[in-house]
This record gives sequence, structure tokens and C-alpha cells, in this order.
Amino acid sequence: MAKAIRILGIDPGLRRTGWGVVDVEGTRLTYYASGIVTSDGNRPLAERLAALYDGIVAVIADHRPAEVAVEETFVNTNAAATLKLGQARGIALLAPARAGLVVAEYAPNQVKKAVVGAGHAGKDQIAMMVKVLLPKAAPQSADAADALALAICHAHHRGQSVDRLAKAAS
Amino acid sequence: MAKAIRILGIDPGLRRTGWGVVDVEGTRLTYYASGIVTSDGNRPLAERLAALYDGIVAVIADHRPAEVAVEETFVNTNAAATLKLGQARGIALLAPARAGLVVAEYAPNQVKKAVVGAGHAGKDQIAMMVKVLLPKAAPQSADAADALALAICHAHHRGQSVDRLAKAAS
Repeated sequence: MAKAIRILGIDPGLRRTGWGVVDVEGTRLTYYASGIVTSDGNRPLAERLAALYDGIVAVIADHRPAEVAVEETFVNTNAAATLKLGQARGIALLAPARAGLVVAEYAPNQVKKAVVGAGHAGKDQIAMMVKVLLPKAAPQSADAADALALAICHAHHRGQSVDRLAKAAS
Repeated sequence: MAKAIRILGIDPGLRRTGWGVVDVEGTRLTYYASGIVTSDGNRPLAERLAALYDGIVAVIADHRPAEVAVEETFVNTNAAATLKLGQARGIALLAPARAGLVVAEYAPNQVKKAVVGAGHAGKDQIAMMVKVLLPKAAPQSADAADALALAICHAHHRGQSVDRLAKAAS
């Protein structure tokens, strides 16, 4: 029997970063934990990023994932929103990298395809399918559900992703 | 006589992050150090961000600035470039915040105005004026010159910026 691999999915955002932990054993997925890390919009930006960093470091320390997946989000609204998201995303990538973990990245349509079966599913469909695939999950918000979807996506793709990343890191 | 305040300016970039350290004593500016932190474009993104973080942490440990200024850059080329810059910028803000330092942010036109006297100066003009204002400076690249310009800008504005940030952090 294959050993279970614990995967942490992170859906980065400056105000709310969703996270979800899933165990995968062969093709079997089990919900482990999920939540959100928030930052106070009234604080200076550098302090908000430090709060996100500390929150993600705590999640990693608490749940000890073996592999991490982060969403490769794009916002098309405006440059200021994209820059803001990029800052949060930098923190979401840095925290696991500094813990020595391999970080895989997935585009939103890859996540949707892995979970719903179509690249253009809505937030509601993703949340519903996460609930079907992980019956024990009770995600705290759409961000936590998205993070669980990311972990599921990585569970499907991890063979090739981890090989590719390990090759790049060697 | 006022005590000299050491200022670190950071011009964030994923490939090259420029940094420059200036001492300010009343209205007198003195060059202290400058350089660049680079990341290898062939490595995975998370690892590159960790390299930037470690580099900036080392600069802070080596030169012990009292205050930090980071450029509030926007790229208008495309969303992917803006996201990339945002990631590097998140790291540039996080490193001093985690060291307990107050981080001020300045838009490029504020920096140009402080150094050249006009909000639409070119890179060459900035580098030239940095050399005039800090005769001992020998910046390693345009990024290091920009970082020194940022430190100069903060030296001019620090009274109000630090008051505002201290107020926000209280």
C-alpha cells in the first residue's frame, strides 16, 4: 500500500488567503483541514504581508504537508489589483520554499478541469465538487474551497509536476 | 547635532533587486553602500523568491538600516509582468517588516521629483543626480542607482512618512 502524501493548497490573496490540506494515497483523497489567513486592511502593507507570512508558516508547522500547490492567478481588472495579488502570491510561494518544500503552480483552468472536469467552471461548481470529492470537508469560505480544489488538482498532477520540479531543483 | 539615520532603499525586481544604503544627518546625505540581489531565471519561482528574501535579509543584517523605503512600481506592459514584479515586491516589503523595521513606499515620480526635481526624469538623469548628491557612490547598475535614489527620496520625506507610518502602526 502506498504511503499517504499530505498536500497543502494555497489560494493567495492580500485580504484573505485560503488554504486546504488533503491526504492522497494512490487515487484516494481524504480531507484533512482547511481555513483562511487574513490581514487587516487598516495596517501598512508590509505589516499585512508579514501577517500572511506568519499565518502560512503556522499552517505549515501545524499540518506538516509534504508538497504544496499555489494558484497561478491573474487578475485582469487593473495593474494595481494585479500588483497587490502578486505581493500576496510572493509570500504564499516564499513560506513553503523557506520550509524546504517543493511548490507546484497551477493555473485556475487546470484546477477547474481537475475538479469539475471543465476549464470554465464557476466558484459555486468548484465548491460543490470539492464537497463531493472530500465529503468531510467544510470549507470556511470560497477561498478555502479553492485551496482544497488546488490540493486536489495537485493530487492528480503531482507525478509529473514533482518530477519536473525536482529536475529543475537538481 | 542630530544623530545620523541609516536608510535602505530597495528597487524590487525578480531578476535583479537593487539596494542602496544612505546615512542622513539633518540635511546631509552620505553614501554608505549599494548593490544588487539577483535570482537565477532557470530556477523554480518559489526558489527565486527565497533567494531574493535571503539576499535582502543579509543586506539588512550587514548594514543595519533604521528605516527602509521600497519603490511602488507599476508596470503597464502586461498582467504577467505586473504579477511577477508584485511577487518580488512582496518579498522586498516582507524582509524589513519581519526585521521590525518601518517600511515607507514611494511612487517612481516622487523619487524622480526628490532626486532630479522633475517627475518624469529618465534612468540616466537619475543615475547622474545620484552621483552628484552622493559623490562617493559607485552604483553597480541602474537598479542600485534607483535604490539609492529611493533612499534619498525617503531622506527628504521621512519626517512625514515615518510619522504617518508610526501612527498607522500604533
